[in-house]
Amino acid sequence: MNQTQIIGKASLSFNKPAYISNYASVVGQLEGQGPLGKLFDCVEKDPMFGGTTWEEAESFLQNQTLRTLFKKSSLKPTDIRYIFAGDLLGQLIASTFGIINYNMPFFGLYGACSTMGESLALASMTIAGGFADKTIAMASSHFASAEKTFRFPLGYGCQRKQCATWTVTGCGAVALDSKEGIAKITGITPGKMVDFGVKESDNMGACMAPAAADTILTHLTDFNLNANYYDKIITGDLGYVGQTILINLLKQNKIDISANHMDCGIEIFDNANQGTGSGGSGCGCSASTLCSMILKNIENKVWKRVLFVPTGALLNPISFNEGKSIPGIAHAVVIEEV
Amino acid sequence: MNQTQIIGKASLSFNKPAYISNYASVVGQLEGQGPLGKLFDCVEKDPMFGGTTWEEAESFLQNQTLRTLFKKSSLKPTDIRYIFAGDLLGQLIASTFGIINYNMPFFGLYGACSTMGESLALASMTIAGGFADKTIAMASSHFASAEKTFRFPLGYGCQRKQCATWTVTGCGAVALDSKEGIAKITGITPGKMVDFGVKESDNMGACMAPAAADTILTHLTDFNLNANYYDKIITGDLGYVGQTILINLLKQNKIDISANHMDCGIEIFDNANQGTGSGGSGCGCSASTLCSMILKNIENKVWKRVLFVPTGALLNPISFNEGKSIPGIAHAVVIEEV
Repeated sequence: MNQTQIIGKASLSFNKPAYISNYASVVGQLEGQGPLGKLFDCVEKDPMFGGTTWEEAESFLQNQTLRTLFKKSSLKPTDIRYIFAGDLLGQLIASTFGIINYNMPFFGLYGACSTMGESLALASMTIAGGFADKTIAMASSHFASAEKTFRFPLGYGCQRKQCATWTVTGCGAVALDSKEGIAKITGITPGKMVDFGVKESDNMGACMAPAAADTILTHLTDFNLNANYYDKIITGDLGYVGQTILINLLKQNKIDISANHMDCGIEIFDNANQGTGSGGSGCGCSASTLCSMILKNIENKVWKRVLFVPTGALLNPISFNEGKSIPGIAHAVVIEEV
Repeated sequence: MNQTQIIGKASLSFNKPAYISNYASVVGQLEGQGPLGKLFDCVEKDPMFGGTTWEEAESFLQNQTLRTLFKKSSLKPTDIRYIFAGDLLGQLIASTFGIINYNMPFFGLYGACSTMGESLALASMTIAGGFADKTIAMASSHFASAEKTFRFPLGYGCQRKQCATWTVTGCGAVALDSKEGIAKITGITPGKMVDFGVKESDNMGACMAPAAADTILTHLTDFNLNANYYDKIITGDLGYVGQTILINLLKQNKIDISANHMDCGIEIFDNANQGTGSGGSGCGCSASTLCSMILKNIENKVWKRVLFVPTGALLNPISFNEGKSIPGIAHAVVIEEV
C-alpha cells in the first residue's frame, strides 16, 4: 500500500504520519525575558554560550539544544538515523561545529529563516517513507552572528529602522519517530521561491510575505481546505510589517486568515517594551517558538491542528550589495494532535 | 509492501529504484579543454555566462544547465515536483537566482562539495518513497566566485600551493523519474562529518579524505560488499593528495580500492598540462563529471554499477580565520545500469 498521497501542485499527505516524540529549545536572555520566556527548556545567560566567537556561540547553542533533547528523551545519538539541520551563517558553519561531535549522518539545509520548515519536511518524509525510525530536525540563529553576517557588526552601534526585525538567539530541535509521539506531522507543502522585487535587507517581512502567501494558498488549494480548518496558521518571522502584507495578499485571493494567523516573530518578543522593531526573525525564531509554545499547545490539546509555515528571505551580503532583490521562500508543515 | 530496506548503520536500499531519465552538464572553457571536454553538453566560452558579477555568472550557469536539461528531455518545469540543489556560495545565492525563474518547489542544500551526493540522495529518496514522480538534483560551482568566497579575489594574483585544488566552473543536473530511465539509483549511504583536525584551506583533499573513507567503509559494511563489487568507486574532488590518503586510510581497514578508485577531480583536468594543482574541486566537479562521463559510461554499458561519493570540506572564511579545523563529509549513491 502506498503510504503517501501526492496532492495537488506541491503537497504530500502522509497516511502513515511522522510522530513528534520530543522537542527541545534553548534561547538567549532577551528571548527569555519575552512573553514565551517560561516555555523554553533553557534560557542561557551567556550570549557567547561559553564560546569565544559569535560563530562558536551559535555552534554551542545548537550543541546545547541537542544535549537538552537527548536529556529530555530517552534517545541517544546512535538511535538517530539522520539529522536535518541548518542555520543562517555562510556554509552552515554553526551547524557543522554544533552537530559534528554527535556522529550522526547529516543533511545540511539552507532555507534562510524557513529552514525549520525545510528540515521538518525532509525529516518527516524520511519517517513517512519508511527510510528511518528516528530522525531529528533542527535550526538555529544567533542575533550577533546574524547581524555580523547580514548587516553590521554590533560594535558599529548602527541605528535600526523600525521595520527591521530582531534576529532571535535561539535553537529548536524536534525528534521524529515512526511509532508514537505527542504530536504528528500529517502533511507538507514545500514552497517555491517568490520575488516581488523588494531590495530592503532591513525589511525582511516585506520580502517574505509574498512567499508565505504563495505557500499557504497552494496548501489550501491542494488540500481543498478553508483557512479556518486550522486552529492557527503560523508563519515564522514576518513581524508586524510582513503580517499586514500577508493578510492583504491572501484577501486578494479571497482567503481570510486574519482571525487565526499567528507569527512567531510577533509572539516571541514584547516589541513595544523590548525594542525589537517589527518583531523577531531568524531560523531560531520559528524553531524555538515551535519547540516551546506551539508544541506545548498541541500536546496540551489547546490546539487540534496548526499549519506551521516558516518563512525565509534569500539574500546574502554580496547579492544585496550587488543590487539583487531579496526573494522569499516558505515551507508549510501540518502538525496535529495525536 | 515496504519499498525500502533500512540497512546497517546508515544506508538505504531501494527495492523500487529512482531512475535517472536524463542529465545535463555545462562547464567553463578550462574544463572544456580538459580530458572530458567532448562529453559535456555545453562548454561556455564566456566565464561570466552573460552576467555582470561572478555570483550572477554562477546563477546563469545553473540556469543554463536547467535549460539544457529541459531541452534534452521532454520535461517541462511544471513536470518537476521538487528540485534539490545547492552551491558553495554563502546562503546558496547562486542556486536562488539560478532556479527561481523555473517556479519549482525548492529544497536548498549545503554539503560543500558533497552537495551533488546530498541532492541525489534526497531526490532519489523522494522518488523511492512515492513522494514524487519526477525530481531534479543539481549542484554547481564557479572558479571565480569560489576563490573570492574562500580564498582571495582573483585580482590579487596570489600564488597557489601545489596541494591546492582548482574549483571547477561547472554544473550538473540529473532528472529522476519513478518509472524509467537510462540508469537507476538503488541505494544510498548518507555520511556523517569527520574531522581529523586539518586546518589548511588550500589542502582540501586532506580535509575530505577521512570522511570519504568513513562513508565508503560504512557503505561496504552496511551492504556486506567487497570493494570490487563496483566497477568504480568514484569520489568527488579529493585530487592526488586526497586520493593517496583515502587509499591508505581504507587499507588500514583492510579494504583495497586502489584498483577501482576514480576521483572526478583527477579526471576533469589534465593537471600536468593545465596547471590545476592537485586536481579539480567544487560541487560542480563531481556534478559535471557525473552528468557527462559517468552517466554516459553507465548508459553505454561500459560500467554496470558505480558508487558515487561526492566529498565536501566544511569551512567558511570566518571559521577558517578563527582557527577552526576543516571537517569533511561525503554521501554515497549507488548508480546502476538498467
